[in-house]
Amino acid sequence: MTAGVADPTSLQELVIANRILADQGVVDAFGHVSIRHPEAAGEYVISRSLGPELVTEADLQRFTLVGEQVGGDTRPAYAERAIHGAAYEARPEVMAVCHNHAPSVIPFTVTGAPLRPIFHMAAPIGTDIPVWDISDEFGDTDMLVRTMEQGRSLARTLGPKRVALMRGHGCVVAGRTLREVVMTCVYLEQNARLQLQAMPLGDVRYLSLGEVERTTSNLLDSLSSERAWNTWKARAGFRDG
Amino acid sequence: MTAGVADPTSLQELVIANRILADQGVVDAFGHVSIRHPEAAGEYVISRSLGPELVTEADLQRFTLVGEQVGGDTRPAYAERAIHGAAYEARPEVMAVCHNHAPSVIPFTVTGAPLRPIFHMAAPIGTDIPVWDISDEFGDTDMLVRTMEQGRSLARTLGPKRVALMRGHGCVVAGRTLREVVMTCVYLEQNARLQLQAMPLGDVRYLSLGEVERTTSNLLDSLSSERAWNTWKARAGFRDG
Amino acid sequence: MTAGVADPTSLQELVIANRILADQGVVDAFGHVSIRHPEAAGEYVISRSLGPELVTEADLQRFTLVGEQVGGDTRPAYAERAIHGAAYEARPEVMAVCHNHAPSVIPFTVTGAPLRPIFHMAAPIGTDIPVWDISDEFGDTDMLVRTMEQGRSLARTLGPKRVALMRGHGCVVAGRTLREVVMTCVYLEQNARLQLQAMPLGDVRYLSLGEVERTTSNLLDSLSSERAWNTWKARAGFRDG
Amino acid sequence: MTAGVADPTSLQELVIANRILADQGVVDAFGHVSIRHPEAAGEYVISRSLGPELVTEADLQRFTLVGEQVGGDTRPAYAERAIHGAAYEARPEVMAVCHNHAPSVIPFTVTGAPLRPIFHMAAPIGTDIPVWDISDEFGDTDMLVRTMEQGRSLARTLGPKRVALMRGHGCVVAGRTLREVVMTCVYLEQNARLQLQAMPLGDVRYLSLGEVERTTSNLLDSLSSERAWNTWKARAGFRDG
Repeated sequence: MTAGVADPTSLQELVIANRILADQGVVDAFGHVSIRHPEAAGEYVISRSLGPELVTEADLQRFTLVGEQVGGDTRPAYAERAIHGAAYEARPEVMAVCHNHAPSVIPFTVTGAPLRPIFHMAAPIGTDIPVWDISDEFGDTDMLVRTMEQGRSLARTLGPKRVALMRGHGCVVAGRTLREVVMTCVYLEQNARLQLQAMPLGDVRYLSLGEVERTTSNLLDSLSSERAWNTWKARAGFRDG
Repeated sequence: MTAGVADPTSLQELVIANRILADQGVVDAFGHVSIRHPEAAGEYVISRSLGPELVTEADLQRFTLVGEQVGGDTRPAYAERAIHGAAYEARPEVMAVCHNHAPSVIPFTVTGAPLRPIFHMAAPIGTDIPVWDISDEFGDTDMLVRTMEQGRSLARTLGPKRVALMRGHGCVVAGRTLREVVMTCVYLEQNARLQLQAMPLGDVRYLSLGEVERTTSNLLDSLSSERAWNTWKARAGFRDG
Repeated sequence: MTAGVADPTSLQELVIANRILADQGVVDAFGHVSIRHPEAAGEYVISRSLGPELVTEADLQRFTLVGEQVGGDTRPAYAERAIHGAAYEARPEVMAVCHNHAPSVIPFTVTGAPLRPIFHMAAPIGTDIPVWDISDEFGDTDMLVRTMEQGRSLARTLGPKRVALMRGHGCVVAGRTLREVVMTCVYLEQNARLQLQAMPLGDVRYLSLGEVERTTSNLLDSLSSERAWNTWKARAGFRDG
Repeated sequence: MTAGVADPTSLQELVIANRILADQGVVDAFGHVSIRHPEAAGEYVISRSLGPELVTEADLQRFTLVGEQVGGDTRPAYAERAIHGAAYEARPEVMAVCHNHAPSVIPFTVTGAPLRPIFHMAAPIGTDIPVWDISDEFGDTDMLVRTMEQGRSLARTLGPKRVALMRGHGCVVAGRTLREVVMTCVYLEQNARLQLQAMPLGDVRYLSLGEVERTTSNLLDSLSSERAWNTWKARAGFRDG
């Protein structure tokens, strides 16, 4: 029984999510993804401090929402786990969270240029993505979200949305399922790359609010999510099941 | 006898086309390619809902041109198969169709900047590529071509051409052979990428209409098509045949 | 005795050159590289019509400089072999030729923006790279160099240089050794990519003529060439020798 | 006892650093990384002239700070080893040095556009990166740092910093540990790529001086450095320890 979970399925999925995010270029040696504990809503599960592509079930740890370790695992934890805890604390419906430095997203965190959905696959990123600047409340820092106070500040900027950017740093993505979070992360990066290419060509027509709502609902609740997960899982080296 | 086809060659080629399109970056977990049924002109063959890189012969399904499944295979189908059916319906000479979200193409679907052949390998994309906007006729949707009515609208925009772009979504490519469609898809993506790079340098000289016609005829009817197919097939992991 | 060559070393190197050029992204399914026949200066050796990454010694063919096949090999040949023959014909010192569609080079063939050496590794491309436009002499064509007349026109534009661009098509690279040609091709593509990135930043300071001369001489005649060849050879899958 | 080192750990790490830098795209067939000799502060250890991805412990050589070979190994050495020697000579605290032609860095060496930290991972590159132009002191050269005089000129431009760019050539990175140097190299390239993308979007907000100082200190002295090294090491093919 790893991380105190009776049914190992959700833990296996979390390992797969780590590998997919690495394989798809969303995370490199840094970035992390968590799930709310399936049997204890006041806790979450996340890897110990480790590059996502190396994560196995044996690396998963369990934390209270304020970031205290549960279960006596003393291996070093991610310094920025407050990003996760604060999101779960503020949003009871959130069941998975990812923090990453997806490369194409960075330019949108430091220029004021708004990141908006340019094609249907990125609809889940939403039409009005906020940017959180750690220096607004905390002045000069090492840029990391190290305290619950900082995590809660970020969670306030995120509000009820799926995505918030972090100035000079990356982003946080929160969702109702792990697959929703993974899919949003992959297409957030891709949308940013396409938007960088499209903007010099002229005025960009983004998805309308109505299109975003309808498309999101379809992408996240349907066969699409399953198809993406299975394809990316195979590409990340998981060949069965 | 899979998908009701006596000679398996065309089905094997369709599987290879799926793999090539994934390996060449034309499709990711989404996008699909079909052939007109070789023995039943009123039907087409396409994979069940599955990432193209995972497709095998056992995943192929058979549909009437209006999208009704033939043969009792109850596994979920692609939601957007009307793109294929409507193209076959409108164009008797079309024997293969691909719908994809090739990344570099997207910026040309949302900015009004025309996509045009910048080098000879992309001549088959044609000199005047139309852009179909689903909202023109159907207002706010989930961006997917879900009905024959929508498919036929797209087919009207495609007209007699090989390529039509789809606003905020991707493109459709139709041709007389599966290899023609695959080759056009690969170089459509590459042409878009090169055009994005060239436009900031100054006025771009595109291929003339006469060059496009002569080059297309040569590329699609000659050794070139065979050479490309065999190289890409090997790269996609098919080592013999 | 393949292609009528007693010592197989040069043929093995030609095979390796094909693989390196594919692995380094200089050629895809198209493009070709040749050597002057080591024992018959009036002939050259080049693969039959085949994707470069698939070429083996058994695929090599032998041609007179005007493109007539020597030795009775009836397998289809590259349509554009006149590029090679005309370069060997015009330049007795040229011992190797490559024709390719290296992607980043294309924008410089259609915009008038001059391609110039931005860093030392690309010094061999030279400071004044000509662009040949097939339509100047031959009007609307299928863009291919199909005749010796066309090949000779291109060779005249190339003159005594190492590189000439071909409008809407690609380039030709000629040199005194096969390794010189391969190295020039790899860094021509890389230089083009870097120049595309640098130009929006402001005025670019290119290498001076004196720097180009000194650097070229060093790169092509020294350990550098050997180091590059061995590294790229290993990367292309050749692990010994 | 290779390169005269009793404890082989540091040599194994140097081999791994070579492979990581190649795998992460910082070096291609060219570029090199060294460590100060762990038992002889007046010497350094670096590979013989070889592509970094091919380096093994048997390829390591030992040099005095002025570049004279120690120990009788007569295999050809890197021509530009004065970059390393001069940095060790000028900076007693420097324990590792890398010279490379990381592609995205090149545009910043020839345009006057300053390279600055756009996100936290690149904080160690510093806020004021100097550019050294070999022609300022030495006129037209083959661009290589061939003499101690040239190496010392570069070291003066580097001063107490971690990074100096080299016009039309690449950069030098010096640090207190090998991991610091590798991490700085990887994120220098990534920062350059992101900055190239961000600049067209509008005014870029870079990290403040205070943020750079705090972030650098954290990245280089903490778990982060270990996490990155282990992830990149695995990606480069080292699967244990």
